[in-house]
Formats: sequence, structure tokens, C-alpha cells
Amino acid sequence: MTDPVVFETVSPPDEASHQAALSRHGQLTKPPGSLGRLEELGAWLAACQGQCPPNPLRRPRIVVFAGDHGVATRGVSAYPSEVTAQMVANFVAGGAAINVLAAAAGAEVRVVDMAVDADTPDEVAKLKVRRSSGPIDCEDALTEDEVNAALNAGKSIVDEEVDAGADLLVAGDMGIGNTTAAAVLIAALTGTEPVAVVGRGTGIDDKTWMRKTAAIRDALRRAKPVTADPVALLRTVAGADIAAMAAFLAQAAVRRTPVVLDGVIAGAAALVAEELAPGARAWWVAGHRSTEPAHTLVLDQLDLEPLLDLKMRLGEGTGATAAIPLLTMAVKVLAEMATFDEAGISGPGSAPEKGTGIDTDAT
Amino acid sequence: MTDPVVFETVSPPDEASHQAALSRHGQLTKPPGSLGRLEELGAWLAACQGQCPPNPLRRPRIVVFAGDHGVATRGVSAYPSEVTAQMVANFVAGGAAINVLAAAAGAEVRVVDMAVDADTPDEVAKLKVRRSSGPIDCEDALTEDEVNAALNAGKSIVDEEVDAGADLLVAGDMGIGNTTAAAVLIAALTGTEPVAVVGRGTGIDDKTWMRKTAAIRDALRRAKPVTADPVALLRTVAGADIAAMAAFLAQAAVRRTPVVLDGVIAGAAALVAEELAPGARAWWVAGHRSTEPAHTLVLDQLDLEPLLDLKMRLGEGTGATAAIPLLTMAVKVLAEMATFDEAGISGPGSAPEKGTGIDTDAT
Repeated sequence: MTDPVVFETVSPPDEASHQAALSRHGQLTKPPGSLGRLEELGAWLAACQGQCPPNPLRRPRIVVFAGDHGVATRGVSAYPSEVTAQMVANFVAGGAAINVLAAAAGAEVRVVDMAVDADTPDEVAKLKVRRSSGPIDCEDALTEDEVNAALNAGKSIVDEEVDAGADLLVAGDMGIGNTTAAAVLIAALTGTEPVAVVGRGTGIDDKTWMRKTAAIRDALRRAKPVTADPVALLRTVAGADIAAMAAFLAQAAVRRTPVVLDGVIAGAAALVAEELAPGARAWWVAGHRSTEPAHTLVLDQLDLEPLLDLKMRLGEGTGATAAIPLLTMAVKVLAEMATFDEAGISGPGSAPEKGTGIDTDAT
Repeated sequence: MTDPVVFETVSPPDEASHQAALSRHGQLTKPPGSLGRLEELGAWLAACQGQCPPNPLRRPRIVVFAGDHGVATRGVSAYPSEVTAQMVANFVAGGAAINVLAAAAGAEVRVVDMAVDADTPDEVAKLKVRRSSGPIDCEDALTEDEVNAALNAGKSIVDEEVDAGADLLVAGDMGIGNTTAAAVLIAALTGTEPVAVVGRGTGIDDKTWMRKTAAIRDALRRAKPVTADPVALLRTVAGADIAAMAAFLAQAAVRRTPVVLDGVIAGAAALVAEELAPGARAWWVAGHRSTEPAHTLVLDQLDLEPLLDLKMRLGEGTGATAAIPLLTMAVKVLAEMATFDEAGISGPGSAPEKGTGIDTDAT
């Protein structure tokens, strides 16, 4: 029997450091507020670190949670389930999009097999809960023990990563059928109808879209009685991968570590994580807006404004990772820019009030 | 007498390389199109370089064009004109926002004094045309000779930079009063009323806003007769800094070098550049959307969709530079990701058509 998971109380990022950052932004050699959301981002990161200026981001870590979903056998995806294990091998070999974007962003990728329906290398399978989560349109995704194991896995990964120095976290996803499970969670937690949450996933045709909508409708009916209990909801209609992601996002907040949220799968996990650890959302920023319609419901519910809107819909953490350089810049602005005093620059308010003609006011 | 500037004919980016990139995107280990605009960006950079996959960006260069504007004496800015020269010193010392963002993006900054109303270090003043451009609400910004000198300067900077290996260019700006001149150019070239182009610049109050609107109205009246002649328009209502930027953007296209456009000042220069060298806009991508209202008019007129929308309004090239990491990533996706064949991954279309229950279709 695996122990039920308990999350410690989440405290908010440090308000004094936030205020210090806002004040410092007013002293740097630029008009106040002129760097827009980069200034907000920098102040948020200062608050997360509890110091201003914040330290440079030294160890951003992307954890890709891989898992298959029994619902894929209903024909809800453009790709067969074999792709999940093949992509895990691709992540390990460094050939996937997330590997390339992470390297460009100065981040590292870790892959964990939570429920891939195949054998994967030992290095990624240590926390594996089962082979494929159950088909959520007719059966529970996980048993009681399995959901606890998945939650413990997500929590322990954060502890390991933060203890090893991670200062920014991203939860990525890989799993054929996972947008179906995510859509069910989002519909359940936002009170939305199936047709409003179903998207094209990896690129499905109209017939597949109809099958996906039917599967979401059936699973949503099964989710209704347990919507108020986040652990029961994950057990019933999520899967080991998404359950672990939810715990990861909750525990990141407990461990006072900032997170860049990716798209619709991370978004579904985030909605549940906020139930598991209320206040966790203060530790998250939305990296991007996915083209999946359910993702916008998540952003609205969590009141998060995405940094990027590039019509991405890949998952793996790619949308979040594409935004990491903006966080890097936001930190460096606070840490490295000169102040008006240091640079000997005149501040606002010393401009001529009104001109009477250049003969008197200018050379 | 300075020679009038002639721009060679602009040819479009290479269509065969563009097609090769689109085709390669379909073979990489991700659903086709799932990286959204990163895929378009990569294909555009392949077309600009005339090869697929494109080379990594090795030498992105940001050129900041500094200049004062006589119209600043009308009280149109929150800051005094002294700030322009002080900021030039700050750029040289490396303490400004553009220095910090450029370093984070792997780019280098060059500053050129085109018309600062003070002495600046020799290294930046070599191409200086005059001290402050004329007050455009009542006098021409430049003489005939001066506008040609400014255009030649912008053109020669591109030649120098490209000959030295620059593979991506950004035109940044610094100059108290420059959003007033930019607004006039944009109003003239888009047929817009003064109140629709006037913005808050570095952060002005309501009284300053009224003075700025009046100055724009007066200058726009002076611009009307010369709107169809881009060089005469620059001479009448731009300034040496913006004229040089327009030539820079035109010549970048002539030299087949991609450009990331910044905000409203670069946008005004871009509208003129497209007149100077028709077709130049095919060599530009819009880095961001500034909060200046006139900038959106530019983006609409040039039919460019910005990569970022972060409520930035600083200038210096910061909005463009914040987007450079996305270009870096777009290139690396094409160059470094594995193909389906290389990774031995199943493509779309092999998914089950419809499930009859997991007993038959899954483990």
C-alpha cells in the first residue's frame, strides 16, 4: 500500500523582494515600466528567490512525463501508441524538439516513464507505475495505490531536482491520447461541455475528432461524482503521467521554485495542482498559449496571461521552454543594468514644459 | 555635395530553400506544423540564407541609431534632450537595457551618433550628420545634403556589418523626441489622423500629450506635399537617425540579410524603407508589438505579425532583441532535430481507426 500524499501549505513568493524589484526597476536607465512584462517577470522571479536583484538562472530543468493512455485504443489520435516509447528513446538520444529548444534556452531535459505501454531504458523507468493508464471512457485510469505512487513520484522528482540546485522547473508531457485525458480534467474543473474542450491534438481528422469527443463525453460522465476530490479525479480520468505532473507542479510551489507552464497537458495538471496545494499558482507563469481550445480555459481559470502565442501545439514542454530566454533576460535586467545614478543620467521631469521656439530653447 | 543614394533592386528570399524547409519540417519527429510560428520562422531564415537546414545564427548585430530632435524643445517628451548623449555613454559602457538583452540573446551592440545634440566619443561619431535634426513642426529636419549623408551612412553600416559576417540585423533607436517624428512619418504614409498616432512615448502626462499632438499635426501638414517622395519625406519630417535607419533596413534587404524589426521608430523607418527599396519587407520579421498606437498601424500596413506582445515601449532595439532567441531556436529545430526515419518512429495514419474495447486493442 502506497502512502497517500500530503502537500505542505504553500506560502506566497516574498512580497518584500517583489517591492524591492519594482523600486529598482524605477531606478534603472529606462523609462519606468518601459520593458513591460519583462519587468513584471523580473519582479516575480525576485519574489520567488526572495532577493533583489535575483540570481541568474543557473539550472532550469525540464522534466518530461511520458505515459500511454488506454483511451488511445478508441481511435482518438492521429498516431499509434507505439510512438510514445519511440519518442522516449528520441528524448534520451537528444533528437526531439524539446532537446533542441532546451539546449538553446540553457536548460536540461530529464525524461520519466510513468506509464509507457512498452519497456523503456532503466534510467527513465525507475518511477514507472504501470503499462498504460486505463481507458478512462469506461474504466478508472489508476487504482488507489497507483495514483498515490504517481503523486509520490511527481513530488519526489521536485525534491530531487530542487535539492540538486534546480532554480526553474518545467513539466513537459509525451503520450499518445494525453490530450483526451487533459480535456476531460479541464472540462470537469471548469464546468465546460465536451465540444468546447476537444481539440485537434497532434492533428486529427473529422472522424477522429468525433470519436475523441465521444470518449471525452463518456469519461466526463465518470468524472462528475469525484470532481471535488482532486486525488480521486486523477485516479478516475487522468493517468499516471498527468497525476505525477500535478504533484510536480504542487510540490514546486511548496519548495518555492518558479515554474513555467507549458500547454494543455501541463495546464490540466495545473488545475488539479491548485486543488492539491491551494496558492500554488502564484509560483507559476504561463509560457505560452497553445492552439488547443481547452488551454485557454485553463489560462482563464488560473488568471494567467501567457508570454508567447506562437500557435504551438506540440507539448513536451516546448512552449514553456521557448519562453525561458525571456525569464533569463528579465533576471539580467534587474541584475546587470545601470541605474540613473550610476550612469549619471537625467531623470524624467526635467524636460521643457513648453517650447517657445528653438531660438530660445535649443541650440 | 553628397551623392544621392540609390538602392539596388531587392530580390525575394530563396523559394527553393523555403520549400525544402517546409518539407523537412514534415519529416522531423513532431506532428507537422506543431511548432507553429517557430516552423514558419525557420523556413523564412532558410530562405534568407538560401540553404536548408540554415546555419546557426553566428553574428546577430544590433545597431542603435542615436539622434536628437529639435521638436523636443516643444515639450513633447518626459525627458530632456541631454538624456540622448547620456544614454549613448551608457550604451558604450554596457549598462543599458539593450546591452543586457543583447548579451543574453548572443548578439552584439553597435552605437552610432547620427545627430546627438552634444559631443560623443569619436568611435560612435564618425558618421554624425549634424547636432540635432531640425524642429519638424516648423522647419525641415535636414538639408538635401544631410539627408543623403544620413542615407549613405545607414547603407554603409549594413555593407560593413554584412561584409564582417553579420547574419541577422536589428535597427535600434535612441533620441528624445523621436517618437514624435516617427508618428508623423507613420501618419503620412498610412493616411492617419494625428490623434490616432500619438502615443505616450517614454511616459508623458496629458499636457505633454496635447503639445505632442499639436506638434505632430503641424509637422504632418508640412509632410503632406512630399509624402510620395521618400527621400524628401525623410528630409522634411524625419531626422538623421531615422533616415539612416530607413536606409539600413532597405540595404539589409539588398544584401539579403534578415532583419528583426523593433517598435515604433524602426517601424516608421521600415515604412519609408519599403518605399526606398520595394520588396524589402520580405527580409523583415516583426520582433514585437509596442504599446505605441502608431506601431500597430505599421504592422498592419506591412502585413507583419509580431512574435512578442509584452507591452514593451523602450526602443533601443529591445523588443526585437527579446525575440532573437526564438529565431535561434527556429534555426536549431531545422538543423538539429531527428527525422522520423533517423529515430525509427511511426508516422501518423497508423493509429487504430476505432476501438472495440481494450480487450482486443490494447494490453
